Amino acid sequence: MQYEACVEVRLREGIADPQGSTIENATPKLGFQGVSNVRVGKSIRFTLESDNEETANAIVQELCDRFLTNPVIEDASITIQGVE
Amino acid sequence: MQYEACVEVRLREGIADPQGSTIENATPKLGFQGVSNVRVGKSIRFTLESDNEETANAIVQELCDRFLTNPVIEDASITIQGVE
Repeated sequence: MQYEACVEVRLREGIADPQGSTIENATPKLGFQGVSNVRVGKSIRFTLESDNEETANAIVQELCDRFLTNPVIEDASITIQGVE
Repeated sequence: MQYEACVEVRLREGIADPQGSTIENATPKLGFQGVSNVRVGKSIRFTLESDNEETANAIVQELCDRFLTNPVIEDASITIQGVE
């Protein structure tokens, strides 16, 4: 069966995020007030062939641990959805 | 009221995604089978101060249109959640 996986990779709390800071500093100059705590992460989407949802989840988790994230500074959240 | 906004910026269908291709080509060599259609986007999260959810949505939409995305090659999906 096929699954649509979405992995959101975010910098951990406390890790400096220069890209986010740049956006945050730019917003008031562009006329937007009240924007704070900007954090920029990655979203990785892909299709996965697997027997069942449990296996699919385990594969995506291993992909994250092994090379989609840097566990020292990054956190990942995984979403999986079956496709007909 | 405060809102947590999440903007997922994705490359449009048909736009080349070298980062995604690199991941896709690497997976079989690392022992993962059945991974395809890898697309890498950005996820931007921030806190927004706004009177109500409708206004918050409109502000985030304008932020996207004006400088979070490049509408020629990118698409954005917005999620907003109220915070106590």
